[in-house]
Amino acid sequence: MNLLAFDIGGANLKAADGWGFAASEPFPLWQRPAELPAALREIIARAPSAEKIAVTMTGELADCFETKAEGVAHIIEAVCQAAGRRPVLVYLTDGSLVPPEVACRQPLLAAAANWHVLASFAGRYCASGSALLVDVGSTTTDIVPLVDGRVAAQGKNDPERLAAGELVYTGVVRSPVCAVVDALPWRKQQVPVAAELFATTRDAYLLLGDLAEDPTDCQTADGRPATKSAARDRLARMICADRDLFSQEDALAAATAVARGQLSQLGLAARNVLRRLPEVPGTIVISGQGEFLARQLCQRLQVPAQFVSLAEELGATVSQAAAAHALAVIAGERT
Amino acid sequence: MNLLAFDIGGANLKAADGWGFAASEPFPLWQRPAELPAALREIIARAPSAEKIAVTMTGELADCFETKAEGVAHIIEAVCQAAGRRPVLVYLTDGSLVPPEVACRQPLLAAAANWHVLASFAGRYCASGSALLVDVGSTTTDIVPLVDGRVAAQGKNDPERLAAGELVYTGVVRSPVCAVVDALPWRKQQVPVAAELFATTRDAYLLLGDLAEDPTDCQTADGRPATKSAARDRLARMICADRDLFSQEDALAAATAVARGQLSQLGLAARNVLRRLPEVPGTIVISGQGEFLARQLCQRLQVPAQFVSLAEELGATVSQAAAAHALAVIAGERT
Repeated sequence: MNLLAFDIGGANLKAADGWGFAASEPFPLWQRPAELPAALREIIARAPSAEKIAVTMTGELADCFETKAEGVAHIIEAVCQAAGRRPVLVYLTDGSLVPPEVACRQPLLAAAANWHVLASFAGRYCASGSALLVDVGSTTTDIVPLVDGRVAAQGKNDPERLAAGELVYTGVVRSPVCAVVDALPWRKQQVPVAAELFATTRDAYLLLGDLAEDPTDCQTADGRPATKSAARDRLARMICADRDLFSQEDALAAATAVARGQLSQLGLAARNVLRRLPEVPGTIVISGQGEFLARQLCQRLQVPAQFVSLAEELGATVSQAAAAHALAVIAGERT
Repeated sequence: MNLLAFDIGGANLKAADGWGFAASEPFPLWQRPAELPAALREIIARAPSAEKIAVTMTGELADCFETKAEGVAHIIEAVCQAAGRRPVLVYLTDGSLVPPEVACRQPLLAAAANWHVLASFAGRYCASGSALLVDVGSTTTDIVPLVDGRVAAQGKNDPERLAAGELVYTGVVRSPVCAVVDALPWRKQQVPVAAELFATTRDAYLLLGDLAEDPTDCQTADGRPATKSAARDRLARMICADRDLFSQEDALAAATAVARGQLSQLGLAARNVLRRLPEVPGTIVISGQGEFLARQLCQRLQVPAQFVSLAEELGATVSQAAAAHALAVIAGERT
């Protein structure tokens, strides 16, 4: 039976059918919660025809919702509206798939469940022994321990996962630079940065060549294009400078400092997770827009594990919507 | 001759006439640069009639402008439009007041000059010996050394001032919590915070009672009111929790941690500035919406100085627009 799975975040919508179709698009849920059903309908219309809809989410944390329960209810309602007469299944963090009314009675199990479905799927690449999923996304990173192919996480909800190092709320696109570093190098000094959303990690990785330029994409801190030149302007502003005071070399040094800062945040969390594993992981599954950073992280940790790249396994398009793909595969097998 | 002085920031417009009139209002310059002349005209219309306009700024750093020079030119042009036939004077960081065309030829002297005019004015309260101005605003803090009543700053532009500790880009209202602390306490653990603009320092000071609640004011991270209850929701989101997972005690503990984090950022900068003073300052002039924090900072530094509070000297309304008032007084004396 054909099925379409959604992964609904606070800033992006992802969808996949488990057979090669995938869609990933920016959608600022926190600004336009009422437009969610229409946005989902639009994706359903261009996806292969589906008789069932499955959903997982993180978008319930968006600050248009006063509580997670309200967010979960809103998102499920939007999916049901978009699904029309198709049955809807909601993924819970206990691994079950339940109808909307059941999920709404247990909102904290439906909340932020997408890491769990992706980790369950990743477990297929490491059926025995200890392993790790390192999924570095645009906004957050999941570092999930796997034992014998099963999720062996300690945290049951988001705050617990943050405390355990299994969720690190930092990513390679949207994270404000002021949340990653305290200071940036400039003219042989360390200059404390502005506590302002002037630049994001995307600017650093644009300049370092880890993320590709896209002059048509203006999902940036200042609404200007995702180019190296505009990224330099944005990083300059982090120390209250502009391009006249901030050379290309200054920009590259700043970008390197941001990448290092993010690596050390991730390293702290990963060591926390590794410490609890029964043995050194034999496999590390890496995933997400920030696979390049996941790779650097694992090299830094000096774990002699085999790498499995979901971008290589699934292809670039599907891997960008990896949690939706994982949900489509898992839900498809069960129905 | 009656004069009206403007202090044009990236998020707030301030105006004063030096004789007791003052206005302070939020204006998101970075979102609406084209509306600046109209906003200024509206303030001119309700201020006592003025024959001259003076201006200082920090708004040239707003990211609607590609460079500071572009920002300075835009702001000066907007002031000239609003001023109509009235002459306009622009304050430069060398202490001079010049016509618009002269300022536009030296944009880096007109850029971010408001700290200098306020510090010059503060010098009147400490005519001899070493002194300090500590102006804690909504967004930034100035820690300016004064010697014999004159500005004795090391930094000449914003990046230099940041490096010298004379400018700290952190304030008591708008600063993202993720730029102030790495983690918040929760259920006897330290939980790393979300790199997301979910809450600002204002939420911490609302909860601690340092800033007053205002249910009609929605200039907050989530656009909900500036109340203790909504502030608790916002702080909860910083560790991906919500009010169901985050008690009032959790909120107060988090708020205390944010205040401590900000105090230690300011302490680092202030010690940097104090080290360069020829002697322990005899007077500390405190100012801005965050006078309460400036006071705590100075107590922490254990400097046995005499305090001068501009809120007490000028009254609450005028002191909220202290740099505009300072400019009005200084420009008024010279013309």
